[in-house]
Amino acid sequence: MPENFIPTDKTRVVREPQRGVYDRAAIYKILDEGFVCHVGFAVGGQPYVIPTMYARIGDALYFHGSAASRMLRNLSEGAAVCLTVSLIDGLVLARSVFNHSMNYRSVVALGTATLVDDPGEKLEALRAFTEKILPGRWQEARGPSEKEMKATSILRLPLSEVSAKVRAGGVEDDAEDYARKIWAGIIPMHLAAGAPVRDERCDPAIPLPDYLTKYTR
Amino acid sequence: MPENFIPTDKTRVVREPQRGVYDRAAIYKILDEGFVCHVGFAVGGQPYVIPTMYARIGDALYFHGSAASRMLRNLSEGAAVCLTVSLIDGLVLARSVFNHSMNYRSVVALGTATLVDDPGEKLEALRAFTEKILPGRWQEARGPSEKEMKATSILRLPLSEVSAKVRAGGVEDDAEDYARKIWAGIIPMHLAAGAPVRDERCDPAIPLPDYLTKYTR
Repeated sequence: MPENFIPTDKTRVVREPQRGVYDRAAIYKILDEGFVCHVGFAVGGQPYVIPTMYARIGDALYFHGSAASRMLRNLSEGAAVCLTVSLIDGLVLARSVFNHSMNYRSVVALGTATLVDDPGEKLEALRAFTEKILPGRWQEARGPSEKEMKATSILRLPLSEVSAKVRAGGVEDDAEDYARKIWAGIIPMHLAAGAPVRDERCDPAIPLPDYLTKYTR
Repeated sequence: MPENFIPTDKTRVVREPQRGVYDRAAIYKILDEGFVCHVGFAVGGQPYVIPTMYARIGDALYFHGSAASRMLRNLSEGAAVCLTVSLIDGLVLARSVFNHSMNYRSVVALGTATLVDDPGEKLEALRAFTEKILPGRWQEARGPSEKEMKATSILRLPLSEVSAKVRAGGVEDDAEDYARKIWAGIIPMHLAAGAPVRDERCDPAIPLPDYLTKYTR
């Protein structure tokens, strides 16, 4: 695979082009940090955007198709799809309202998704969903039965037409605004995990697993 | 405005219908908590999903159109749009892989967006973007100049065809799995704000404003 994605008319970052990222490794890092994507598809001109779980394996994204039956039906028939992953990194508080901004990393992947038929590949995708969020959980939880596997729909999108847009760093104000007596700076933001809450039907004698004791995001 | 949104063929929650929410107040609460939406639109059959900031004022959503010029061009010409807001509330760790889930709240709003021309309405939308995230900031920061106002594109989507999908609560396992010696429960998640980082060009004599000292999300 080439080191960089080649920007197309559809994926080239036009607005704030200096924020465009086409480096494959950098894009995969963003994809591997997120776990919820927004899937876009259109039916008769009406776009829909549906959040669902995903994971990257190699040069493809796998995502849960069972979130919306309309999505599944359309995408498995070969409709064009846009899969977007956005991570919020911070609020940028400039001295002027106009220069307020956000730090973020977002990836847009375009293409055509296909329904995963092969049971081995499907299992691998399910494993990837679980392990990317909670390394160790897959080993411990009860694995899917044949019936459950059949009830699970996974779609695969090859990563070929992809770009990212990243805003990082500090405040950028207009030269004449720096003298203003206004607090300026960044409020970092991230998706945080709280303390695990034991299911009331879970025997208190079962210890909190290591992968949860240490869990942070 | 009627108390509930009337589900249409496009917004009725088909998959897991018990998670469907059409109550206007409940939906507005979700919309008011989030501040980044994913805007979906299609150009020649190709869907795009772009993250951008938004705020609700009354029965309309206002969103930043400058994030993507392609979006702006298409939406201001009356293309159908889908605006989705998703909040991640937790990971649901069941005893079986199949019953693993997420707690989330997501809203899907469909319709046609229009470019906001009226300067007063545009200013009101900008104020709403800022104030919903940081109450107090609008008052303090340098307001937009006429030139900056012209450089800002805001779109308005009336809230008429809208639904939400909400998964909340605890673990739901298959009856025969409860006896398994596997830790089960919820990991709560939320978007968290870290300690504010002062811009290096911001005079240390300027105190951290009250609305930042107390800032949590």
